[in-house]
Amino acid sequence: MAFPQQVRIVEVGPRDGLQNEPGPIIPTEIKVELIDRLAAAGLQHIEAASFVSPKWVPQMGDAAAVMAGIQRRPGVTYSALTPNLKGLEGAIAANTPEVAVFAAASEAFSQKNINCSIAESLERFQPLMEQAQAAGIRVRGYVSTVLGCPYQGEIDPAQVAAVSRALLDMGCYEISLGDTIGKGTPLQAKKMLEAVAREVPMSQLAAHFHDTYGQALANLYAVLEEGLAVIDSSTAGLGGCPYAKGASGNVATEDVLYLLEGLNISTGVDLRAVVKTGHWITRELGRHNGSKVAQAIGPCGSD
Amino acid sequence: MAFPQQVRIVEVGPRDGLQNEPGPIIPTEIKVELIDRLAAAGLQHIEAASFVSPKWVPQMGDAAAVMAGIQRRPGVTYSALTPNLKGLEGAIAANTPEVAVFAAASEAFSQKNINCSIAESLERFQPLMEQAQAAGIRVRGYVSTVLGCPYQGEIDPAQVAAVSRALLDMGCYEISLGDTIGKGTPLQAKKMLEAVAREVPMSQLAAHFHDTYGQALANLYAVLEEGLAVIDSSTAGLGGCPYAKGASGNVATEDVLYLLEGLNISTGVDLRAVVKTGHWITRELGRHNGSKVAQAIGPCGSD
Repeated sequence: MAFPQQVRIVEVGPRDGLQNEPGPIIPTEIKVELIDRLAAAGLQHIEAASFVSPKWVPQMGDAAAVMAGIQRRPGVTYSALTPNLKGLEGAIAANTPEVAVFAAASEAFSQKNINCSIAESLERFQPLMEQAQAAGIRVRGYVSTVLGCPYQGEIDPAQVAAVSRALLDMGCYEISLGDTIGKGTPLQAKKMLEAVAREVPMSQLAAHFHDTYGQALANLYAVLEEGLAVIDSSTAGLGGCPYAKGASGNVATEDVLYLLEGLNISTGVDLRAVVKTGHWITRELGRHNGSKVAQAIGPCGSD
Repeated sequence: MAFPQQVRIVEVGPRDGLQNEPGPIIPTEIKVELIDRLAAAGLQHIEAASFVSPKWVPQMGDAAAVMAGIQRRPGVTYSALTPNLKGLEGAIAANTPEVAVFAAASEAFSQKNINCSIAESLERFQPLMEQAQAAGIRVRGYVSTVLGCPYQGEIDPAQVAAVSRALLDMGCYEISLGDTIGKGTPLQAKKMLEAVAREVPMSQLAAHFHDTYGQALANLYAVLEEGLAVIDSSTAGLGGCPYAKGASGNVATEDVLYLLEGLNISTGVDLRAVVKTGHWITRELGRHNGSKVAQAIGPCGSD
């Protein structure tokens, strides 16, 4: 057991959180204000947008305007999801310093979700990786369904390790391990991480856990014990499919920060400022605040 | 790290869960059906009622009728909270095989909550303990505010250990450690437990965690690693003060069972049956189901 002394939070609320939000398109200025507030709260890595066809993800149709509108605080990395070369070109044109690509650990999920095999999806990223490298842009890799697949059920940790290694070998500087359906439990998370860490250095791994079954913080505690030091989370628990059963999205940044404070792990983030931001954005969107810490502390920031 | 192979769940929903429920008094037959359903789901220890003045806790005013109405399934322990001698007499008259008493780990909480010091509260339990022993009734001890007090803030683990030891010495067979305000985090829970386990054998300790700050499952994971093997929980997360900020009650039995299944720890409880019961009772009460597992699995028991 060796907890990290510091953890880097990758705030994914503005992208993973908002991309599936139902209802009207969220105004660009709201997205920009959300990102600026999160940066002001001390978050140093914010996934701000997705350069993807607005036909598929209407909420992300203003990615370029969002990237143009935000403050660009020194020391903060603003990144964007780029599913293909066209997305990368949009991201480069919008002066995005970091992009992300994704692959599934489950063949069935890859086929259903992006209509090709895992190997084909990795192959398609090759020109994107090359162009990103030529442009001096860092690429983060997401691996989805690492603790279970809605179509295939259990996922072999060796398969997660293989896909993670492939993304690393292609040039990704960090691999984020996604429990897409939030079904994992701590020992499973630990075993999966141990398998991946044999292929990818622990310092290049991140946990991206959803809280659908309420296990996310327990799972994070288990992987922190293994020394993992990068956590993806979403302010107010934004995200998930609001139409689906459970409707639970990413683990809430506030709840993760509270856990880390209790473990004496520093993040550089002001929990109370994130709580206020989470109450503000959920009020703007007219949706439930998915952070228990935010609910306990309340919108005025005092419990 | 030595996880227990088995965990005993103490289901506190019918008492700790329902006692603060706002609105009209819940009919006795609903309480009886809840308890019978939980027993049928495999829960072998159910806190069924509280023998307390209905002036103070109107929802528990029918404790005797509840104890008379339930099925008394063989192998299941049905217990009741008895804050004083009069309560114990009521419990004995209602043929209750086990009772529970409570003390605070915080002086300020003891004064505000029961209007006397911790030492005085323990002294007052002395005749109750003697009469229970004479009647062959087991007594469980609750210690509240073990990970923080709303009036006093932090609580010294040594103080929790001292109160736990006092209850053990008075004759309690098991001490349940309550994070009343749900503010604890895993390392804190672990340190508190280590301090208590120096005074009370681990096999006689239980964790009673609330999920107000979303940390309950992570805290349980941490104390399971220490070998703790008894967990109090509440179906559908019933409980807490529905008027208070956060409104979050006891950790949900469903979420605990899901965690334990993932750790290969057996409980003898049928998770799907508890999920159905939780959906049924929250429908009856017209309240939110606080279990994420129940929300993910849905009322038909299939996810």
